[in-house]
Amino acid sequence: MGGILSHSFTGNGIITLTTDFGLRDPFVGVMKGVVLSRFPAARVVDLTHAIRPFWPIEAGFWLSRSWRHFPSGTVHVAVVDPGVGTSRKILIAQYNQQVFLAPDNGLLSFVTGGADEALVYAFEPNDRLGLPVPSATFHGRDIFAPLAAELARGAVQPHELGPPVDMQVDSRFEVAITASGVAGAVITIDHFGNLISNIDGRHLARFRQPVVEAGGRRFRLVRTYGEAAAGEDVALVNAFGVLEIARVQDSAAAALSLERGAVITLTDA
Amino acid sequence: MGGILSHSFTGNGIITLTTDFGLRDPFVGVMKGVVLSRFPAARVVDLTHAIRPFWPIEAGFWLSRSWRHFPSGTVHVAVVDPGVGTSRKILIAQYNQQVFLAPDNGLLSFVTGGADEALVYAFEPNDRLGLPVPSATFHGRDIFAPLAAELARGAVQPHELGPPVDMQVDSRFEVAITASGVAGAVITIDHFGNLISNIDGRHLARFRQPVVEAGGRRFRLVRTYGEAAAGEDVALVNAFGVLEIARVQDSAAAALSLERGAVITLTDA
Amino acid sequence: MGGILSHSFTGNGIITLTTDFGLRDPFVGVMKGVVLSRFPAARVVDLTHAIRPFWPIEAGFWLSRSWRHFPSGTVHVAVVDPGVGTSRKILIAQYNQQVFLAPDNGLLSFVTGGADEALVYAFEPNDRLGLPVPSATFHGRDIFAPLAAELARGAVQPHELGPPVDMQVDSRFEVAITASGVAGAVITIDHFGNLISNIDGRHLARFRQPVVEAGGRRFRLVRTYGEAAAGEDVALVNAFGVLEIARVQDSAAAALSLERGAVITLTDA
Repeated sequence: MGGILSHSFTGNGIITLTTDFGLRDPFVGVMKGVVLSRFPAARVVDLTHAIRPFWPIEAGFWLSRSWRHFPSGTVHVAVVDPGVGTSRKILIAQYNQQVFLAPDNGLLSFVTGGADEALVYAFEPNDRLGLPVPSATFHGRDIFAPLAAELARGAVQPHELGPPVDMQVDSRFEVAITASGVAGAVITIDHFGNLISNIDGRHLARFRQPVVEAGGRRFRLVRTYGEAAAGEDVALVNAFGVLEIARVQDSAAAALSLERGAVITLTDA
Repeated sequence: MGGILSHSFTGNGIITLTTDFGLRDPFVGVMKGVVLSRFPAARVVDLTHAIRPFWPIEAGFWLSRSWRHFPSGTVHVAVVDPGVGTSRKILIAQYNQQVFLAPDNGLLSFVTGGADEALVYAFEPNDRLGLPVPSATFHGRDIFAPLAAELARGAVQPHELGPPVDMQVDSRFEVAITASGVAGAVITIDHFGNLISNIDGRHLARFRQPVVEAGGRRFRLVRTYGEAAAGEDVALVNAFGVLEIARVQDSAAAALSLERGAVITLTDA
Repeated sequence: MGGILSHSFTGNGIITLTTDFGLRDPFVGVMKGVVLSRFPAARVVDLTHAIRPFWPIEAGFWLSRSWRHFPSGTVHVAVVDPGVGTSRKILIAQYNQQVFLAPDNGLLSFVTGGADEALVYAFEPNDRLGLPVPSATFHGRDIFAPLAAELARGAVQPHELGPPVDMQVDSRFEVAITASGVAGAVITIDHFGNLISNIDGRHLARFRQPVVEAGGRRFRLVRTYGEAAAGEDVALVNAFGVLEIARVQDSAAAALSLERGAVITLTDA
């Protein structure tokens, strides 16, 4: 736990949204309507709404690799919520001068990484915020959007929303580090078909001659796409600091039939 | 018609957009450019741009279920316009302190439901607003966006834009209420593959033991997805207040081969 | 080159984004985070993020047909960048009181058309702007977004960012004008399946009885979709001022198997 001063959060008016709602329906637009109804000066930024439905790990991954690009005082809302309508908790985490809202399903464990200085609270409904009676299926609109607006405009502090709790941790896709190497998994596939893993690029320093393997194949390590010919399969540390497998100017996902969850290993030659 | 005072509209600076333009091309972005050129302080919110092309009913449905989540003074623009370039009218409706712009093709009849207090005007071009000579195919950019900007910034009132008219009503998908039951239709399929009908959940109160049927099958009524197992097909009143058919944590649309327009009935056991 | 006065750019706070990043991943959201970190009052408008991957010509085409709908002082960022990580230049073009940022791969040649009054500079890193060490693969976030923010807020002028240069020109898809006719190509296919060419509608005036042909077929010229029956294939000058082939209320692309790059000719009957 941090000291007394770190309990105080000052919003900058920016709220980001990360969901599996897609953009086909007005779910996201309606959340913005709710935010603007409570906080007209809010600036809402879509991080992504194309998280694989019901797969919180992908949301946690992207949020963990994105939040540092937003200024202090940002409120991040991540709603990938297979348990909506059950008794799962809603978490408010304060971490590095930013606030994160998400269901308690492991998503936020990727963001805070269990850091001691993360202050984590479980939302308890109260009359003060004037929340609507929530629907059974759309807490993004009925709980998350109002909370984000009130936090962003400074009407409430994270620690006023509920008691401190320990968050659930999703350990299914933890990177395994052994004497012989590092094993991780494909967590997301981007728009270009690049296979993006959870292996932080800093692990490369452990190896004299690092070898990247996945699906029974080896991939040449490069620093940038420009070092390889169009169509070549390579591995590189991408702009988000993690290992990815790419087919230059083409789709590795389509070509290699590797899916989310596929194992990627890093060993010494 | 309302009284004199209700003629006065005060914008809050928010403009929502609902179209069948998709997000592949810069159509929506260009509309925002036009809005910001006339009203730099506008805040434009995308409701959805994935309405099925040329199907105004879906736009009317979503707008009717979304506008209450925006504050008084919002201007809503809905452009699903198979008749663009013909002599169909452009409507400006003032209703519940909000303003709605749409082609006169039945779309707005889902929003106002023919309510007496809706003030509806047909746009007549005038020199005062400095509109461009409109293209034959993109009135969203050339007429709707400028009108929305001028209404939102308070430069013009709805009743100054043209004479009061009766709007066209789309009665193809009206819910049928008989002694034996209620019959509606699938109006939209959401990102998760849920089949969303036009049957308001309040109709359930008519039945002692309500039975939901579609495509020759019965669906168990639940209050929330959490009451059923993953993969089970259920019916529930969703967060927008209407009956939907869902396969829990999966896509009912893919599994049940029910399309937009499919009949859903509600009867007593 | 313009005179001294035209060197001075005054931003209006609007920044548009045109990329091939898609909306599946947080790439675009993170760029907005970087912009807002440097310039909290920025208003960022998405033009499109669905440019065909690695095809700068489509981005150049749309930007050339869209920028006039934005007010003076807008900063446009276009990142379609097959050469990211190589030594290709980054250009800053000042043109008609607007600023355009893009990799030097021909994209901007569609926007400025080689006009003398376009002031074009090649970015040279300097310490003054406090840019991060750029990643090898995501200059949109590490270079373009910070530059756009600093230009939009007036912290730097285009001519301060690097020396004047001649931009690369992409001549692969230049319209060919001969004694017998005009030949162009399908540059993009819109959300409705319309095949949009690079042939400016003003060329029609050259012909007494213009004939539009593509894929071995002739297309009737109409002024608006409303002049043809649903399902009919037609040619028309669209709202962006260029010739397009459309199937009314249907998808010409799906029906006619014409792809990007397909030749469209305009001759006399």
